[in-house]
Amino acid sequence: MKYTQSGDLVMVVSHDQKRYFIRLESERELQTHRGVILHDDLIGIPWGSEIRSHLGINHYIIEPSLRDLLLHIRRRSQIVFPKDIGYILLRLSAGPGQTIIEAGTGSGALTTAFAWIVGQEGKVISYDRREDLQKLARQNLQRVGLEDRVEFRLCDISEGFEEKDIEALFLDLPSPHLFLSQVRGALSNSGRFGAILPTTNQVSALIESLKKHDFDLIDVCEIYLRFYKPVAERLRPTDRMVAHTGYLVFARPVLPLADHPNDNQDVA
Amino acid sequence: MKYTQSGDLVMVVSHDQKRYFIRLESERELQTHRGVILHDDLIGIPWGSEIRSHLGINHYIIEPSLRDLLLHIRRRSQIVFPKDIGYILLRLSAGPGQTIIEAGTGSGALTTAFAWIVGQEGKVISYDRREDLQKLARQNLQRVGLEDRVEFRLCDISEGFEEKDIEALFLDLPSPHLFLSQVRGALSNSGRFGAILPTTNQVSALIESLKKHDFDLIDVCEIYLRFYKPVAERLRPTDRMVAHTGYLVFARPVLPLADHPNDNQDVA
Amino acid sequence: MKYTQSGDLVMVVSHDQKRYFIRLESERELQTHRGVILHDDLIGIPWGSEIRSHLGINHYIIEPSLRDLLLHIRRRSQIVFPKDIGYILLRLSAGPGQTIIEAGTGSGALTTAFAWIVGQEGKVISYDRREDLQKLARQNLQRVGLEDRVEFRLCDISEGFEEKDIEALFLDLPSPHLFLSQVRGALSNSGRFGAILPTTNQVSALIESLKKHDFDLIDVCEIYLRFYKPVAERLRPTDRMVAHTGYLVFARPVLPLADHPNDNQDVA
Amino acid sequence: MKYTQSGDLVMVVSHDQKRYFIRLESERELQTHRGVILHDDLIGIPWGSEIRSHLGINHYIIEPSLRDLLLHIRRRSQIVFPKDIGYILLRLSAGPGQTIIEAGTGSGALTTAFAWIVGQEGKVISYDRREDLQKLARQNLQRVGLEDRVEFRLCDISEGFEEKDIEALFLDLPSPHLFLSQVRGALSNSGRFGAILPTTNQVSALIESLKKHDFDLIDVCEIYLRFYKPVAERLRPTDRMVAHTGYLVFARPVLPLADHPNDNQDVA
Repeated sequence: MKYTQSGDLVMVVSHDQKRYFIRLESERELQTHRGVILHDDLIGIPWGSEIRSHLGINHYIIEPSLRDLLLHIRRRSQIVFPKDIGYILLRLSAGPGQTIIEAGTGSGALTTAFAWIVGQEGKVISYDRREDLQKLARQNLQRVGLEDRVEFRLCDISEGFEEKDIEALFLDLPSPHLFLSQVRGALSNSGRFGAILPTTNQVSALIESLKKHDFDLIDVCEIYLRFYKPVAERLRPTDRMVAHTGYLVFARPVLPLADHPNDNQDVA
Repeated sequence: MKYTQSGDLVMVVSHDQKRYFIRLESERELQTHRGVILHDDLIGIPWGSEIRSHLGINHYIIEPSLRDLLLHIRRRSQIVFPKDIGYILLRLSAGPGQTIIEAGTGSGALTTAFAWIVGQEGKVISYDRREDLQKLARQNLQRVGLEDRVEFRLCDISEGFEEKDIEALFLDLPSPHLFLSQVRGALSNSGRFGAILPTTNQVSALIESLKKHDFDLIDVCEIYLRFYKPVAERLRPTDRMVAHTGYLVFARPVLPLADHPNDNQDVA
Repeated sequence: MKYTQSGDLVMVVSHDQKRYFIRLESERELQTHRGVILHDDLIGIPWGSEIRSHLGINHYIIEPSLRDLLLHIRRRSQIVFPKDIGYILLRLSAGPGQTIIEAGTGSGALTTAFAWIVGQEGKVISYDRREDLQKLARQNLQRVGLEDRVEFRLCDISEGFEEKDIEALFLDLPSPHLFLSQVRGALSNSGRFGAILPTTNQVSALIESLKKHDFDLIDVCEIYLRFYKPVAERLRPTDRMVAHTGYLVFARPVLPLADHPNDNQDVA
Repeated sequence: MKYTQSGDLVMVVSHDQKRYFIRLESERELQTHRGVILHDDLIGIPWGSEIRSHLGINHYIIEPSLRDLLLHIRRRSQIVFPKDIGYILLRLSAGPGQTIIEAGTGSGALTTAFAWIVGQEGKVISYDRREDLQKLARQNLQRVGLEDRVEFRLCDISEGFEEKDIEALFLDLPSPHLFLSQVRGALSNSGRFGAILPTTNQVSALIESLKKHDFDLIDVCEIYLRFYKPVAERLRPTDRMVAHTGYLVFARPVLPLADHPNDNQDVA
């Protein structure tokens, strides 16, 4: 059995599914509309325990999952949603020990997921030209203890990325089609490129630019997530759902024959 | 610039998007309907290079992404699809250094994704009672060089899992509702539980069983992935899509007040 | 050019797309948060005209479509949505001059659509056991001038329908699987049967009952309707959508060989 | 009980759900891979009867619904699908006695639905500049006995429609945005306009043109239809589905204040 400790990040879930995120610290208290809970009553108890606020309302003490963390990021911009992040991770082949570039940082949701996945040996390099957003993102990363894995770069990517031969690069900004030369400068040939875009017009512009900049294996897709009410004898979808977050675009930079540094690959 | 080496796992993509997976080995050749390509012509060239088969058909040399690997697993059973795997990874909070249990192994697609994400420090423990499937899954893991991260257990989980206090556990089998006592024996309180199920009847049975076995935060959902034809001036979805793979169910085991080992969490 | 007349049912649409339904009547006025509009200023003007309220807010004078009427029905129960109604009409083969049975009446949305489609020569027979709902439905039908085409029956269909040899019959009630003997008594062999149901459990029960009562050509489906923001240079879906209204079930009553009144159809 | 007659249009459905459409005629026979069935054995039997081919395979004799007819139209062009047609009917407010314009005719699927709905008192006017398609459409309409309700016009709509003050008009052609002056010439103010378009680029062009030509209440949407396998104890969606047919666009022509023929509607 695992027990909570002082310093743990904890998700307190009321019986009506309202969620609070706190870091356990002796002598502090959680005050909500559902009553007061003393941190000291949450320290040293088994994870998953049910506890009761001073108003008699029950709560569970849950270790937040990556998705829980992502949904509760403080945001000042549209974040990338978990449904999209999961698929982005697969398409970018994100994994332990890697270095991944993203631009822009935004509120840091995708940054958090990348930082989680690359582990202590990996690194996320996150570009944004807005200082306020990077500050917010840094706070969000600190809150979940992942800030050491991220290098924030406060600059405009129109001047290019500082890195070379990176394996995976993701753009979450309005005009990715304008920065593909810069992307090619930073991304390995055959590396993984991705972007998220809200409108079809932006997708068309990006596809056109990708073809001009010798990207291939271009995929455009969108992901829908539909929840069901978890009632065994009356199983049915929820009444409403998110209809759109963004279109996902993935591609690989390639080296067409004409551009080859050497010519030995022509087997004909 | 990164160059291919002997021993690399390579995805050869023809211009009509047909994909071949080979491990580069001197003096071997790739023979397809699109012509012969000598491995020696693929060794030591830049990743992303375009090469030509002896029939004059062009191909790109691409480093496969995790999603590419998953789609090309040799299968003798329905595999979990990348669209679902991405979201499962987030919900199970899979990450570097973790230990994750799954049952059954099947052809090993989800096993591969878990093995990728937990990294060299992590471990996947994969249960199945069918020897043929575990053998196939092991071969699939070997093919992508991840077999060291997986322990296969050839046994029936009705007798329980060998492990305790595991953080994440996933069931991909027809009657997960029958094995929730066993799951609770292996999974930490507040740990992450998930399952995938093709029919609504199975989902209803699982929800009912989850409630009986003190799981909370139950979520049922499904994920749709819709692709678009990547043509800038005629952007439109593809004609057909996968309509269903399975329903995803996630939940957390909790400790209701009545069952607490100690009683100090009642703050009233 | 067509002009509005006293007595016309009119949809007044403000520039921010708020809609008001009024029947034009001299000396009355429309009072809304967007200002006062005199009916007399709306009588005898071209359809489609833009007019201005006393607050200077512009509105268009639009002839409501069937879908507009359906969306603005006064409701005391969940109505069938236009996205589903359109498809139901096709599957039931509703058309001019037909007689169609429905149960229950509910607030009368589907009743309105059926009454519209069958025309002056046709007839809708609508069963419900709740007097308050039938009264509301009758008012809704009167409001749009279609009440003459509907016969309301205030009774419980467990006692059977009064009609025989009807071509199309639709059930919008919680337990349609309990009334299939009654349906077979009223519906022609090979006639069109349909139902709408919110939960998967109800669908399973209905499928099972349909098979027991010699229905064939059973189809189960659901319809999603996704709207886009109509902005040419930033085309994208709306943020949220209806995720679920109900599952649609369609089937045909058949006469299996064993039950044939005569035996001449066996050509073997 | 209703009985089949010589001259009836009949859908013969084999037990594996293969469908054949025939018009009953004495001394003819239906020959398929599932055996021979004599028309004479199908004449004068109850609708819904099960009959057996000379190979002993069972079939049901079903009266085709409008949707059945639409799906079995002989086509030489992409047809509008039933899922879209149902919603189009509602949005165009199609009903008995109306006159509806469409362009182009195509293979006549939407023409058939319009002809069905307007009844014997109504009329469909269908424009196309391709003689081969109109001939095919005419044959399709004849096959289902609805050709009397349709006037085919073999001409190019760039020269304008012959009609005026029509209530509903639908465009199913590649560049509807080029013909909106012509549409306004034929369509009543506040009348119902609709179009179907496969690509997002076409939708953007149409929206822009609609705004220029004083259309309002512009709606853009798409409809998904997902089928389930009708098995009570293993209820689940089918594996694959149609991902895209077209985007639907609806709008109403309006008369902005500046263009009013008289000025009495300004109540300020």
